[in-house]
Amino acid sequence: MADSCFRLAGNAGPGIIAPVNSAPLGFFDSGVGGLTVVRAVQELLPTEDILYLGDTARLPYGSKSPETIRQFADEDARFLIARGVKAIVVACNTATAHALPRLRELYRLPVIGVIEAGVDAALANPNAARIGIIATRGTIRSHAYQHALALRRTGLIIHGQAAPLLVPLVEENWIDHPATAMVLRTYLDPLVEKGIDTLMLACTHYPLLIPVLRDLLPADVRLVDSATTCAEHLQKELVRLDLLAAPDHDGKLEVHLTDLSDEFEALARRFLKKAPGRIHRAVLGGA
Amino acid sequence: MADSCFRLAGNAGPGIIAPVNSAPLGFFDSGVGGLTVVRAVQELLPTEDILYLGDTARLPYGSKSPETIRQFADEDARFLIARGVKAIVVACNTATAHALPRLRELYRLPVIGVIEAGVDAALANPNAARIGIIATRGTIRSHAYQHALALRRTGLIIHGQAAPLLVPLVEENWIDHPATAMVLRTYLDPLVEKGIDTLMLACTHYPLLIPVLRDLLPADVRLVDSATTCAEHLQKELVRLDLLAAPDHDGKLEVHLTDLSDEFEALARRFLKKAPGRIHRAVLGGA
Repeated sequence: MADSCFRLAGNAGPGIIAPVNSAPLGFFDSGVGGLTVVRAVQELLPTEDILYLGDTARLPYGSKSPETIRQFADEDARFLIARGVKAIVVACNTATAHALPRLRELYRLPVIGVIEAGVDAALANPNAARIGIIATRGTIRSHAYQHALALRRTGLIIHGQAAPLLVPLVEENWIDHPATAMVLRTYLDPLVEKGIDTLMLACTHYPLLIPVLRDLLPADVRLVDSATTCAEHLQKELVRLDLLAAPDHDGKLEVHLTDLSDEFEALARRFLKKAPGRIHRAVLGGA
Repeated sequence: MADSCFRLAGNAGPGIIAPVNSAPLGFFDSGVGGLTVVRAVQELLPTEDILYLGDTARLPYGSKSPETIRQFADEDARFLIARGVKAIVVACNTATAHALPRLRELYRLPVIGVIEAGVDAALANPNAARIGIIATRGTIRSHAYQHALALRRTGLIIHGQAAPLLVPLVEENWIDHPATAMVLRTYLDPLVEKGIDTLMLACTHYPLLIPVLRDLLPADVRLVDSATTCAEHLQKELVRLDLLAAPDHDGKLEVHLTDLSDEFEALARRFLKKAPGRIHRAVLGGA
């Protein structure tokens, strides 16, 4: 399919111009944690333009009710769709867990979450049998990972562990503080005792904890993180849908946050591992 | 002044019926932490009806920008004013720090914050000279406590310490977990080294940490918390403004939250030290 033509909505719903390959990918997250996914996507798909929305004014989503998360996710998606994105990446585990099916019902452009990708990656190892999941309380409570895993392979032993203190510890940059190791041990010890062979890091903040996690876990426990697995899944989907950007394009990133502050900017730099450029203040329709 | 008559707006702004003594007191906070203030007020002023609004859908405020906090506080105040409260208590240090002057400008009913009360209580001790403050990053950054203290007594040595991990630790009920003591030591050691004689707990979540704080601090450091000091200040203001409820009235509490969940309800019970009754879902004008 040609790269530059506008197509009329076959797949994108009545009255909507289907997005073209040159349109940006839209990402949203409750805050800036989803930039770990953006970083992984930029490495794998450097030709893609990315429009990122972080709902920093209302973060976190992980402790809030499914109903509220679905409402926020819907407002986030509308912001991106209004800006002509060709696909939406829900770069937030909690929002994927609670809102993905509804977003797919409401909108007819491709909506990609972090859960299917993580599950694919965890089960890429045919020997994976005992799987631990750490995530926000909202993600664990949703059972989205547990269901997705159980549907794909029978006989798995799955342990979900809510780990709500990890996001604030990562945001404070206390990665190497002894309190972080102590908190992690409290969350991980029950999983290790159950003999897990795979640990899924089901929150976009957690990739920053990988060095500490490696020290604390037995060497044979495999770590699967949301960021890199989502990037690989997205690449496959864009190929399948014939939606890749032109191979000679130099992808740009545009970051929009619903609340701006020096802290969010500093945090964005840590998650992205580089300066995010000028950050724009986003005003959502419903907020 | 009679308890049951409606007075026309002398003090309450054009076109607004001034609240009567039998009207409820309106409290707002970013979440349910402000219920520690409600509990203290219920003990001191059991005849007062209380309408409490917790903005759980957008909590926390402590990490967000002054501009966003002012906007949220304004929406919270409007919710209470629309329900006929006779005065507003800003039961949140971050919102008091950033939004109190503006709320007093915008609305002509009494607006009481937690900062003046805390400063009064800290300086009630004539020997207080070296004052430590622990609070959210937003409260410390605002310098509201530091300015209020310095205006009231010259020569004070004041040390503000942002302690952003304490709210999540309290919310997780990890009061007695060794990680909490470790986190507290990281925040408190620099203050103790500076020889503080008073520690202000400038966040409504912190009263729950008092037993642990007592163990960690030298015995001669005086603790001043937002909850009890605010209740005493409120009592004085209601007497001064002739706004006390009838002495034979049995005060009721009505709790409204912008997001409902079992966790928020459990947390509310811990902060209030009793069941909060039926919790209502609040929809704010601007949200």
